[in-house]
Amino acid sequence: MADDALIVFTPSGRRGRFPVGTPVLEAARALGVDIDSVCGGRGLCGRCQVELCEGGFAKHGVHSRADHLSPRGDTEFGWELRRGPLGTGRRLGCAATLLGDVVVDVPPESQVHRQIVRKRPEVVDIALDPIIRLYFVEVQQPDMHVPTSDLRRLKDALQYEWHIAGLASDVRVMQQVQEALRQGSWQVTVAVYDDERIIAVWPGLHEKVYGIAVDVGSTTIAAHLCDLQTGEVVASAGRMNPQIRFGEDLMSRVSYIMMNPGGDAEMTAAVREALSTLAQELAGEAGIGVGAIVEATIVGNPIMQSLVFGINPVELGGAPFALATDEAIDGLWATEIDLAIHPNARVYGLPCIAGHVGADAAAVILSETPYLGEELMLIVDVGTNAEIVLGNRHRLLAASSPTGPAFEGAQISSGQRAAKGAVERVRIDPATLEPRFKVIGSGRWSDQPGFDRTIARVGVSGICGSGIIEAIAELFLAGVINHEGVVNGSLAARTPRVVPDGRTFAYILYEDASCSIRITQNDIRAVQLAKGALYAGIRLLMEHFGTEQVDRIRLAGAFGAHIDVKYAMILGLIPDCRLEHVTSAGNAAGTGARIALLSRKARREIEEVVRGVQKVETATEPRFQEHFVDAMAIPHKSDPFPRLRAVVALPAPTASGHALGRGQGRRQRRRA
Amino acid sequence: MADDALIVFTPSGRRGRFPVGTPVLEAARALGVDIDSVCGGRGLCGRCQVELCEGGFAKHGVHSRADHLSPRGDTEFGWELRRGPLGTGRRLGCAATLLGDVVVDVPPESQVHRQIVRKRPEVVDIALDPIIRLYFVEVQQPDMHVPTSDLRRLKDALQYEWHIAGLASDVRVMQQVQEALRQGSWQVTVAVYDDERIIAVWPGLHEKVYGIAVDVGSTTIAAHLCDLQTGEVVASAGRMNPQIRFGEDLMSRVSYIMMNPGGDAEMTAAVREALSTLAQELAGEAGIGVGAIVEATIVGNPIMQSLVFGINPVELGGAPFALATDEAIDGLWATEIDLAIHPNARVYGLPCIAGHVGADAAAVILSETPYLGEELMLIVDVGTNAEIVLGNRHRLLAASSPTGPAFEGAQISSGQRAAKGAVERVRIDPATLEPRFKVIGSGRWSDQPGFDRTIARVGVSGICGSGIIEAIAELFLAGVINHEGVVNGSLAARTPRVVPDGRTFAYILYEDASCSIRITQNDIRAVQLAKGALYAGIRLLMEHFGTEQVDRIRLAGAFGAHIDVKYAMILGLIPDCRLEHVTSAGNAAGTGARIALLSRKARREIEEVVRGVQKVETATEPRFQEHFVDAMAIPHKSDPFPRLRAVVALPAPTASGHALGRGQGRRQRRRA
Repeated sequence: MADDALIVFTPSGRRGRFPVGTPVLEAARALGVDIDSVCGGRGLCGRCQVELCEGGFAKHGVHSRADHLSPRGDTEFGWELRRGPLGTGRRLGCAATLLGDVVVDVPPESQVHRQIVRKRPEVVDIALDPIIRLYFVEVQQPDMHVPTSDLRRLKDALQYEWHIAGLASDVRVMQQVQEALRQGSWQVTVAVYDDERIIAVWPGLHEKVYGIAVDVGSTTIAAHLCDLQTGEVVASAGRMNPQIRFGEDLMSRVSYIMMNPGGDAEMTAAVREALSTLAQELAGEAGIGVGAIVEATIVGNPIMQSLVFGINPVELGGAPFALATDEAIDGLWATEIDLAIHPNARVYGLPCIAGHVGADAAAVILSETPYLGEELMLIVDVGTNAEIVLGNRHRLLAASSPTGPAFEGAQISSGQRAAKGAVERVRIDPATLEPRFKVIGSGRWSDQPGFDRTIARVGVSGICGSGIIEAIAELFLAGVINHEGVVNGSLAARTPRVVPDGRTFAYILYEDASCSIRITQNDIRAVQLAKGALYAGIRLLMEHFGTEQVDRIRLAGAFGAHIDVKYAMILGLIPDCRLEHVTSAGNAAGTGARIALLSRKARREIEEVVRGVQKVETATEPRFQEHFVDAMAIPHKSDPFPRLRAVVALPAPTASGHALGRGQGRRQRRRA
Repeated sequence: MADDALIVFTPSGRRGRFPVGTPVLEAARALGVDIDSVCGGRGLCGRCQVELCEGGFAKHGVHSRADHLSPRGDTEFGWELRRGPLGTGRRLGCAATLLGDVVVDVPPESQVHRQIVRKRPEVVDIALDPIIRLYFVEVQQPDMHVPTSDLRRLKDALQYEWHIAGLASDVRVMQQVQEALRQGSWQVTVAVYDDERIIAVWPGLHEKVYGIAVDVGSTTIAAHLCDLQTGEVVASAGRMNPQIRFGEDLMSRVSYIMMNPGGDAEMTAAVREALSTLAQELAGEAGIGVGAIVEATIVGNPIMQSLVFGINPVELGGAPFALATDEAIDGLWATEIDLAIHPNARVYGLPCIAGHVGADAAAVILSETPYLGEELMLIVDVGTNAEIVLGNRHRLLAASSPTGPAFEGAQISSGQRAAKGAVERVRIDPATLEPRFKVIGSGRWSDQPGFDRTIARVGVSGICGSGIIEAIAELFLAGVINHEGVVNGSLAARTPRVVPDGRTFAYILYEDASCSIRITQNDIRAVQLAKGALYAGIRLLMEHFGTEQVDRIRLAGAFGAHIDVKYAMILGLIPDCRLEHVTSAGNAAGTGARIALLSRKARREIEEVVRGVQKVETATEPRFQEHFVDAMAIPHKSDPFPRLRAVVALPAPTASGHALGRGQGRRQRRRA
């Protein structure tokens, strides 16, 4: 035992005795400690860095001293020369050998399965577990006396050095392996996919590979470039979906395909080209070549997802809205979708859930993980269709509701997209009925000093989705409109802001020489229809779930990020809930795509979760129409909203609400 | 039991009792009887045909009567209307139901795993077991109330009707499935690859799929089109390898690549284009579309195999002759090698064995199955390199020997390829030293009546490989040349056929106004060098195996088919063996490719066999040179050839043989 030394690893607590002279990395591997290495212990990659913990550790029965590890030698000096100094107290696990008892810490960045830091503390962190891993090996040179193929000897080396056996190989690796071996002087790095297949080979030590997580929206395509070995986002970019030239919204694009044979191929080509351009942009931003990107995950609504993967989405344009597939698209060569990244890269498409509930919704579920907790979570992702998910670890329901584009500022008389010059915040004084507001591009409220200068600079050009919601909610709180959404024309006598507008009345929010922003009766109706559809969808899911209330509401996407959740609830977009439990989920679809990129366990998890999701089809549910009619009122015909009322003074319902809601409901039904 | 009936199937002998009214096909499946069906028992495909055996079968305890099966009904009449009459006594297994005890025969053509008929009775037949199978299913239409994807419902149908679960799908199937389902009114046929992946889908019932087995030679590419459901060859075709424009033989092509960067890609493109053209030609001949071809197997020497699969063969051009891979290339999309057959088709490349021993040799092994028997088999495939395999079920050795092109008629003064006008058979009268011969394109010997008319028609243009071998062997038997291959100049006095030729002598085989065919001393030397190399390779393998004799010799390829094996042995190309045990294996490489096409078990078998083959590298074996020197003599310096002598009167050895062989050996060494 005199020649043995005890080593204790933190944070894992794994421990064991090894002969003096054993490298720390070797001890770690023997004990199954989670420690990274690409070069296989050759002092090249520096991934196996550890920290010696000095002192006496009664708990471990160890007195750990700096001189219980071998002094720094050529390997570490050489590494520092090439890479810069190792951090204080840092050693290369492959170079430092045991001389006596030690406690050694494996810092997070040296762990293979380190946690990907998440924004929300209540959610279980995702452990980094990329499906593609790199292995550096030294391969025996060919010998005429023992004729074996280069690939065979490469696999032998993988088995000998890394204990990985039975790997298959892409034909493209077979095409590249000989040149790589010779260029790398019989040292190469291979990328192994899912522990079963060699998909790429580079000469020498190749330490960095990247992946992109792409959220293909109808309007915008957003992508993150991630380092597959740290999980870090190294660049993000977005660009317009070029399919917009075929139609602004999804249905007009499907119509284009119906009218133009081959239109689907045109749109597929357009979106694929945009993906390649995005990849190029991300790589440029990160200062890498696109060839370093070896994987991509893709999410989108069912129509976008279909088009990216070359599936004609025409069936999604009409009942019964049949998906081609509700499975994940797994391990596809990127070249198969013309994605110009590493030629052997793989693509993973998250599964779609139903004809209206896409892979983006699956990604939101993966990001928000409602399936893990007891808490009943409602997730709403608002676009032209709202995708709604409700449930907990016992059961998960999903639906889509046709809200139309009003929440995005479309179909509103002074509406516009959320861009510079758009009114985004509105407050109305209940006494004077005078408004104050904020404009995108300015930090000031309209009643603050210096606002005029802002106006001169950015201009006021219209009102965006969040602005119209706040405006209508504030008008309701101020009594300018009633529960039925009718503008009270009698107020025209009290304030010049209320003016006749045909047979109804409008409220003038802002007016200057070049721009007039009015909230008209039609605008209010459009928002009522949209929020009625959204609320009805939510109600339907709650009814299917058998619940009257939800514990937590997460608003996903740009809408959820911009909106003030209080106003969303005052207007009755979402059901009653404790306000502090209603929060924005940010770009949850993008986050879900990123999680799938970094964790193969997460892929298997979401595939399984999606199979179990109960789909509720709003279009065929008679109860949807009933809920819709009731939800036209502000905030709702019958729901009392007790939690909201506890913090906001809502006006009492008026008697006529019922009749008006009905009338609107019929109109909507005729339209549908 | 009154309502049960006994059914006995032949040839399997499986038996069971089933309720009266059970269809024969259902009973067969329940009993695990090997019976085909694509349509799943709908009376559409007619593959489940059976024959009722009438009479009493004491052995089975059955009295089988025609009226113990239900009478013919609409299904069978309908089938006959569409497809023509069922054979006498034939019934559709899915339509005929049990009324009483019966014995029912499943004819070979109704069995899934029927035997592929082989030419040689001593070899185990290969059972048809294509890796791609067709399944017809009726798929539920989509229902808005139960939203599932089209592919999901298709898979449910496969599970319900065929009990196949857990299938993956090509993304290309996802792209095609919706249109196919709707075109086929919710009936489709799918192609399932290796029981695990749907690779193609057709609307309605699709009964015929084909595969091509391709042998890519340096000079010629040959291919067979096979019906994957019957195993039958429906068309065969061959064409020149267009790579010939880059160099006549393998080494000059590799040189081209070394001199011209990108030359490998040029050659790859050329050979791939030829493969597509061949596929087109085969499809045309069979009257099908290329889209009906869903699989291809490919064999070739290491350089050809590399080029087809896009692997630069430059490493094979010099020592240590390292292969990129010695694994099979499995399940590759045909589009990946630009092969224009069904766009979702798969390609299988047999494994290469060593740098000089290719997938064609693996195919020969698969065809000849030396690994199954006790008999020690020698297989020789002669081309510019001779590939040599020796062994039995205990051990298998392979080598390649650089014979050069003399056996193909090249480097011979009057040599030419085996084509019309070439002398292919030669006999020389030992008394008169007068020759008689046969020319390709004529059925007559030169001393038969009417030969002159033949000459007028086909002409005599040169001598091909088999002709030169017979000529030299006959000259040896007639004493015109001795054991050392020296033309006896003193015979010039006896016959005008022996004439001076520089410092040596030549034998005039034929002469007319336009053509003179002489066998010169240099020609004889060229053949001696070639046969010396071949024999030395064989000897080396025998030595490694530890044997002095072989039980059976199989000559593969065109050379083996054209040559008279007796002359090959007289000349000493191959070791002594009972003449009736030396036979042509025909195009064994092509046969092996065809077997791999039709049987996935055969693929796994040859992959395993190839892994176990012991490679012997002739270039590095000092003993090779020794054997080579000894083998320069005719038939050999020291081997007594007792079995040959038992049937052929060989001249006695001369004393000077030794020295001459040595000299030639040194010359050869300097060249190498």
